[in-house]
Amino acid sequence: MTDLSALDDSELKDLYSDLEKKYSDVKKQNLSLDMSRGKPSPEQLDLSMELLDLVKSEDTLVVKEAIDVRNYGSVDGLIETKQLFAEMLDVAPKQIIIGGNSSLSLMHDTVARALLLGVVDSKTPWSKLPNVKFLCPSPGYDRHFSICEALGIEMITVEMLEDGPDMDKVEELVKNDENIKGIWCVPKYSNPEGITYSDEVVTRLAQMETKATDFRIFWDDAYTVHHLTDQPDQLKNLLDACVGANNPNRAFIFASTSKVTFPGSGISAIASSEENINLIRKQLSTQTIGPDKLNQLRHVRFLKDLKTINQHMQKHAAIIKPKFDMVLNVLETELASYNIATWNEPNGGYFISLNTLDGCATEVVKLASEAGVKLTPAGATYPYGKDPKDRNIRIAPTFPTLTELKTAIEVLCLCIKLVSVKKQLDK
Amino acid sequence: MTDLSALDDSELKDLYSDLEKKYSDVKKQNLSLDMSRGKPSPEQLDLSMELLDLVKSEDTLVVKEAIDVRNYGSVDGLIETKQLFAEMLDVAPKQIIIGGNSSLSLMHDTVARALLLGVVDSKTPWSKLPNVKFLCPSPGYDRHFSICEALGIEMITVEMLEDGPDMDKVEELVKNDENIKGIWCVPKYSNPEGITYSDEVVTRLAQMETKATDFRIFWDDAYTVHHLTDQPDQLKNLLDACVGANNPNRAFIFASTSKVTFPGSGISAIASSEENINLIRKQLSTQTIGPDKLNQLRHVRFLKDLKTINQHMQKHAAIIKPKFDMVLNVLETELASYNIATWNEPNGGYFISLNTLDGCATEVVKLASEAGVKLTPAGATYPYGKDPKDRNIRIAPTFPTLTELKTAIEVLCLCIKLVSVKKQLDK
Repeated sequence: MTDLSALDDSELKDLYSDLEKKYSDVKKQNLSLDMSRGKPSPEQLDLSMELLDLVKSEDTLVVKEAIDVRNYGSVDGLIETKQLFAEMLDVAPKQIIIGGNSSLSLMHDTVARALLLGVVDSKTPWSKLPNVKFLCPSPGYDRHFSICEALGIEMITVEMLEDGPDMDKVEELVKNDENIKGIWCVPKYSNPEGITYSDEVVTRLAQMETKATDFRIFWDDAYTVHHLTDQPDQLKNLLDACVGANNPNRAFIFASTSKVTFPGSGISAIASSEENINLIRKQLSTQTIGPDKLNQLRHVRFLKDLKTINQHMQKHAAIIKPKFDMVLNVLETELASYNIATWNEPNGGYFISLNTLDGCATEVVKLASEAGVKLTPAGATYPYGKDPKDRNIRIAPTFPTLTELKTAIEVLCLCIKLVSVKKQLDK
Repeated sequence: MTDLSALDDSELKDLYSDLEKKYSDVKKQNLSLDMSRGKPSPEQLDLSMELLDLVKSEDTLVVKEAIDVRNYGSVDGLIETKQLFAEMLDVAPKQIIIGGNSSLSLMHDTVARALLLGVVDSKTPWSKLPNVKFLCPSPGYDRHFSICEALGIEMITVEMLEDGPDMDKVEELVKNDENIKGIWCVPKYSNPEGITYSDEVVTRLAQMETKATDFRIFWDDAYTVHHLTDQPDQLKNLLDACVGANNPNRAFIFASTSKVTFPGSGISAIASSEENINLIRKQLSTQTIGPDKLNQLRHVRFLKDLKTINQHMQKHAAIIKPKFDMVLNVLETELASYNIATWNEPNGGYFISLNTLDGCATEVVKLASEAGVKLTPAGATYPYGKDPKDRNIRIAPTFPTLTELKTAIEVLCLCIKLVSVKKQLDK
C-alpha cells in the first residue's frame, strides 16, 4: 500500500474495482451498527448499579441542614452535592448551583435566561438586541450549535487549533463586535477532537478585551474526570483566571455525572462567580422547585468525593480504552499509508475526530450508512451542520461491543478509501 | 359572642382589652409554627416509601420499546409514563410529554418558549411584541404570578367567582386586546379557594373569541386527584372542549406527582393537542436529554394506574382531612358569630382561603408572625403581591401536626379578632 497520489490511473482503477467488490460484499452482510452518539455501553452502566440501592425505604432521609430530602426545598441543591461538584471542579461550594438530570438543560436555560433577562453585567436582555452572536470553535459539539440555532443566535465558526480555539481570531472578533455575547467551549478532551485547552488559551480567554460588557464563556467541562490514561490532561482553572484578569463574572462552567453514573438519571451543576450564582439562584426560584434531592443523595453516597470518582472513572476507562485503541489500530492499519485521513489520539473524553480529504465526509457517511453503519451526520460538528471543508467525521467508540466496533471501523475505512480513490480518479 | 357591628364603643373596648391580654399571653409561649406553604407532612411522605425500593440493582431495567432506562433517550418520556398521565388527565398518550421533577419548570419553560419562539399559531415570538399580558384570576397561585413578573408579562387581575373566573370579564378582555396572550388557571380545587370550575366556565374558556390568534390557557391541574371527600368534584375535559369549539391548540394542561409521591422527586407532564405536543417535542430536543427514566420507572411501578393512584390518594386524605376539619371547626367556633371573616370549605386540594374584613389581612399576618405563626404573606395570592381589598389569607393546613395546627389557627383567629375590633373602634 502506498500514498494514493503516487498511483497512476490504471493502478487507481484496479484499486477502486477491488474496493467496490469489498463494499458490495459488506452490504450483503446487512449490518446494523450505530456509532453516531456518545453513549456509554451497558457494561459501563453496570458499574453504577449499586447507586440504585443507596436510598431505600428504611434509610434516614434527613440530611445536613435538617433537610428532609423527600419534601420541597433546596432550590440550588444540597450542600453535600455542592461540595462534591466543588471538589470536582476546583471551586468553592458557594460558587455552585446543582441542576437536574441534564447539563444540556442548564446550558440551554442559561442562554435562555440571558436572552429573556440578561446577565449580571447586561444593560439589556439579549433578546431585545437586533442581533446576538456566539463564537463556535469547530469542530465542536452539535448540541451547543443547536441551542444557538433554535434561539436565533448567529454562530461564527472559529477554527480549533492543537491547543484550543484560534485565539488570535477570537481576540480580534470579540474586541470589535459588541453583538458577540458568548463562546462555546468544551475545554477538556473536547468534543470531538479530544483536545485540552492549554494554559495560555485559558488565560487569553479570561483576559481578552471584549466589546460586549456582558460577554460570557460557556465552558462545558463535560469530560473533566473522563480520562483514558494514567497521565490525565490538566486544565487551568478558568474561574481563577477570570478573577485574576479582573473579569470575575465572565465564565459559566457546566458539568454533570451523565457519563459517570447514568445518562438521563444523573445530576448536573453550574459553577460561576458568586455574583453570577446569586443572580441565577434568584432567577431559578421562579423557575423550579429545585433539583431532585433523593437523586442527589444517591449520588453523594455513591460517588463520595473526587478520589472515589477517579477510582470509578478508572473502571470506565478499563472498558472503553480498548475500544479507542481498537479504532486507532484499525485506522492506522487501513488508512495511514494512503495519506487520505488524519485523526486525533485523545487522552480522554468520548470521541475520535477524523478528517478525510477535503470534500469527502458527506459521501463517506452516506456510503457507510448504506452499508449499515450509522455515523454522526457529516457537518454536525460545525455550526448550521455545514463543514466548510466537508472532511470531519466524529467517531463515538464507547457504545458498540469490540467486535461490532471492529466491523464498523473497517467499513468506515473501506468507505473512506472508496471515496478517496474516486476523488483521485475524478481529478 | 355576637356580630361586632352590634357592639357599642364600651363593649368593643372591653373586648379589645381582653383580646390584647390573650395575645400578650400567646406571645410569651414563643411559638414557631409555619403554615405558609402547601407542603405534605412527613406522614404523607411515608405513604410512598415503597417507591424507593421499586428500582433496584438486580432489576430488569429494559422496558417497552427496548429502552434501557439507564441510558440516553426518550426526550418526551417513556410510553409507560405517558399512559399513566393520559389516564389521569383523560387524554391520549400521544397528547402527553413527560417532564422532570417540577411542573413549575414545565409551566415556566412553556411561557419562556412562547416568548423566545412563539407557539403553534404565533406570527411572532411573544418577546418581540411591545407588550404581553396574561389574565390572572385571583386569588390565585403566587408562583404563576412570579413567572409573569420575572418574565415581564403584564398581569390583569380577574375576580374569582364561585364557579371559576368571572367569565363576562374574561370574555370582554380577550375579545378586545390582542396583547392578552394567556390566562393562568388552577381549575380543580383551586389554589387557594378550593373551587372547581363549572362545566359552563370550561366551555366558555374553550369557545370565547380572542383577539390574539395565539391565545393560550395555562391549565395547572395540580390537584386533579387530590380529593378530600368520597364525592370528588368533576372537571370538564378542557382539551375536548377546545376541539369542540374549533380552538384545538388553545390549552396547555400541567400536572405532576409532587403531592402524590415526593415533592422534588416526582414526575410532571404536559398535555395538549397533538400539534402543540409535536412542536414542543421538537423544541425540547435542543433543550434537554429528556426526563429521568429511572424515576419514571419507579413511579410507573408504584402508581400503576388511576385506580391505584386513587387508592393512594385516599391514604393522603385520611391524614389531611382531619387537619382541614380542625381548621374549619376552629374558624367556625372562633369567628362565625362575629361576622368578621368568610372562608371556603374545599372538597380537595391543599388550602383554605379566608377573607377578613377589607383592609385587615396585612395586619393580621403581621401580628400572627410576631406571635410565632408564619402565614403566606398577605397579598401573595394576587398579582404583584397586592390584594386590592387586603383581605385574603391562604391557610395551608397539611404540614403541621394536628396539635400545632390547632394552636396556629387559634392564634390566627385571635389576630383576626384583634385587628377587626381595632378597625371597628377606629371607625
